[in-house]
Amino acid sequence: MPLTDDDQPTYDFDTATAVRRGEGGVLLADLDQTWQVGGGILNGGYLLSVAARAAVSESPHPHPVAVAASYIRPTPAGEATLEVTPGAAGRTLAHSVVTLSSSGAGPSIVVQATTATLGDETPDYDSSRMPDMPPPEECVDLSARLNPDPGKRPGLSRHVDSRLDPATAGWTVGEPSEEPVLRAWIRFVDGRPADPLGLLTFADVLPPLGFAIGQRGWAPTVQLQVLVRAMPAPGWCLAEARATQIAGGWIDEDCTIWDSEGRLVVQARQLARLSRGR
Amino acid sequence: MPLTDDDQPTYDFDTATAVRRGEGGVLLADLDQTWQVGGGILNGGYLLSVAARAAVSESPHPHPVAVAASYIRPTPAGEATLEVTPGAAGRTLAHSVVTLSSSGAGPSIVVQATTATLGDETPDYDSSRMPDMPPPEECVDLSARLNPDPGKRPGLSRHVDSRLDPATAGWTVGEPSEEPVLRAWIRFVDGRPADPLGLLTFADVLPPLGFAIGQRGWAPTVQLQVLVRAMPAPGWCLAEARATQIAGGWIDEDCTIWDSEGRLVVQARQLARLSRGR
Repeated sequence: MPLTDDDQPTYDFDTATAVRRGEGGVLLADLDQTWQVGGGILNGGYLLSVAARAAVSESPHPHPVAVAASYIRPTPAGEATLEVTPGAAGRTLAHSVVTLSSSGAGPSIVVQATTATLGDETPDYDSSRMPDMPPPEECVDLSARLNPDPGKRPGLSRHVDSRLDPATAGWTVGEPSEEPVLRAWIRFVDGRPADPLGLLTFADVLPPLGFAIGQRGWAPTVQLQVLVRAMPAPGWCLAEARATQIAGGWIDEDCTIWDSEGRLVVQARQLARLSRGR
Repeated sequence: MPLTDDDQPTYDFDTATAVRRGEGGVLLADLDQTWQVGGGILNGGYLLSVAARAAVSESPHPHPVAVAASYIRPTPAGEATLEVTPGAAGRTLAHSVVTLSSSGAGPSIVVQATTATLGDETPDYDSSRMPDMPPPEECVDLSARLNPDPGKRPGLSRHVDSRLDPATAGWTVGEPSEEPVLRAWIRFVDGRPADPLGLLTFADVLPPLGFAIGQRGWAPTVQLQVLVRAMPAPGWCLAEARATQIAGGWIDEDCTIWDSEGRLVVQARQLARLSRGR
């Protein structure tokens, strides 16, 4: 029996991140090959959502608020086991470590998850400012441009709708920027509202920041931390990712997400390793 | 036998973070009560350095480059065990999970550590700018003001010398700021050069950011990620910490550290829980 909420049975994301209990009580997930970024590599944010759903299923608290993941090896689609080791659970928050392993291979990601209850109360302090950018319909739908037929869109773009700010989309027409910055509106294609679990996927859904400055090659995530700061309002989220330093083959990617009402809802930072092919 | 480097046997930090092998091969540390922040609570950065030293001792690579820790319960001084679970080790980097437990209690912190080799090569890209601030001798030595006798300084300030930017030190004389921002020069008191292990301590050494805006009460770290971006040059480091959002009892603290040559060496972010007494 899936552990997803009964009232959200039909959204892609909930089906693809469902966690069920197998023989002996072990938690299992069926990792969906369509949540890939190319070459069969599953998206790191998607995997984080699956792991966080396992953490939540074993916690007295409903939402992931701080999640840190080490990406040990690429995770193939198919059945995966999720081992949840509880840390300590209190009235306010609970800690656990989730290890996701594919059958026949060792652990592919290890996730520390802190769970709690998030609200949407007005912040006591907030210095963040949602960047100005044109509305979604004036932004760049890269996926639609590459694949006019929605049924033929590859991987992740079948599930997550992202619209790049034209100011950060020069690289898509051969005019890269000097700055490794990307901004986009993001939502689920099928209308699923964003929530803390969904925001974990959004935190790693933009293209590699090297693309913005004209680099080729992928930048596999080494370690990613996502803080979820509030329940997002319905509608488009705005994500801005920027790298501060590229050195010695390492790049940081800092991703901030605001909800449709301009509320800061995610602060994420990852260290990634530039592939040699760049 | 301590696993610290032979050529650094006498510095406080190396003694206090030493890791040794006990019976049956288990790794042990003697957590030093003087690395506390008050009330016997050991500093979270100090504990991170101890855990990272354990990770490095079991890795083919010498430096922590990405470290994420969940703080499950306060860690008392005294003997602690460090269980290192290796993830995967390659030519470039290795992953492991380190669980630090005190005898008689469960795990108190769980740390994901990625190790690699850091250099000090010129970055390919760097948008960070070290903030302007007065030289150390014109900054606020809060510890010296509170305890003119160096031998009587409490806890951490016996080991780590920090000099607050007067522009962010108003709260020390009853004039808090509107902005939760703190800046300070930081170095080890005994002249130990900064290195990646030491930077992990520096990443959590500033007072709680709530202090800057006149809040009282501690803000225990829930989860902390530290990225170490380069080998620091000798001399004072400059740390700047700022909170972006305070809401629902949660505060983020983003700490950036530059070395004496202005090179970005640390990007750290933590989620902390405001204590009720504020």
